[in-house]
Amino acid sequence: MFKLDPQIKADTFHIADLPLSDLRLMNNKTLPWLMLVPKKIGCIELTDLTLEEQKNLIEEVNLVHQMLFDYQPDKINVGAIGNIVSQLHIHVVARFKEDPVWPAPVWGKVEANPYSDQECADEMVRLQALLKKHQ
Amino acid sequence: MFKLDPQIKADTFHIADLPLSDLRLMNNKTLPWLMLVPKKIGCIELTDLTLEEQKNLIEEVNLVHQMLFDYQPDKINVGAIGNIVSQLHIHVVARFKEDPVWPAPVWGKVEANPYSDQECADEMVRLQALLKKHQ
Repeated sequence: MFKLDPQIKADTFHIADLPLSDLRLMNNKTLPWLMLVPKKIGCIELTDLTLEEQKNLIEEVNLVHQMLFDYQPDKINVGAIGNIVSQLHIHVVARFKEDPVWPAPVWGKVEANPYSDQECADEMVRLQALLKKHQ
Repeated sequence: MFKLDPQIKADTFHIADLPLSDLRLMNNKTLPWLMLVPKKIGCIELTDLTLEEQKNLIEEVNLVHQMLFDYQPDKINVGAIGNIVSQLHIHVVARFKEDPVWPAPVWGKVEANPYSDQECADEMVRLQALLKKHQ
């Protein structure tokens, strides 16, 4: 059975189960920062998914873009890195010209900035509505 | 007609024209660092490609993975960032635990380290052979 990496679990909140991936919110309120974790055992590289699964993943990446466009970002950054946490996970991050690390990529740059319980609850309401709108 | 961004042109070498993308080599010999630039006018976000085109792109991302596996990397990093150069381009980079910036992402971290003419020619021979093998 698929098991989420403990580091990812600690750093993110569950938003929804999509057909392929667990859609999660990074616990950092500096930026709208979502993550897709394909629920398939043992995936590290993109190519550990079948080509068919990767095409399903790109559909989910599209869905996340549609959700993030609601934040009116200047750019959306997508990354599958995994040098520290090897379980395959895809970051999809809304970026703004005024954000604290623009134009650098966010990874390893954005300082910890966790949501309060109320902020997280509010963000989840917004994200669930966006998901419903675009799914 | 599609025109490659001048900054990308200055930083990379053309390897091959794939059905969707211009496959290019980053002019930095620190790492095997390839780039896919979809040859469609006006693309900035992934979603500026149709879903069908994105599925073609993921096939090309797979091809590049197969080529880079020949370098026996510890991880492959994939990123579509575009905060500085907006023309849609996808980095696919072979990473090694002994590389100078591991485990940080490469963007903005790897110092300039251009190929000599001979080194570039040699690398191109290898890449063309890998492309032929996996295409």
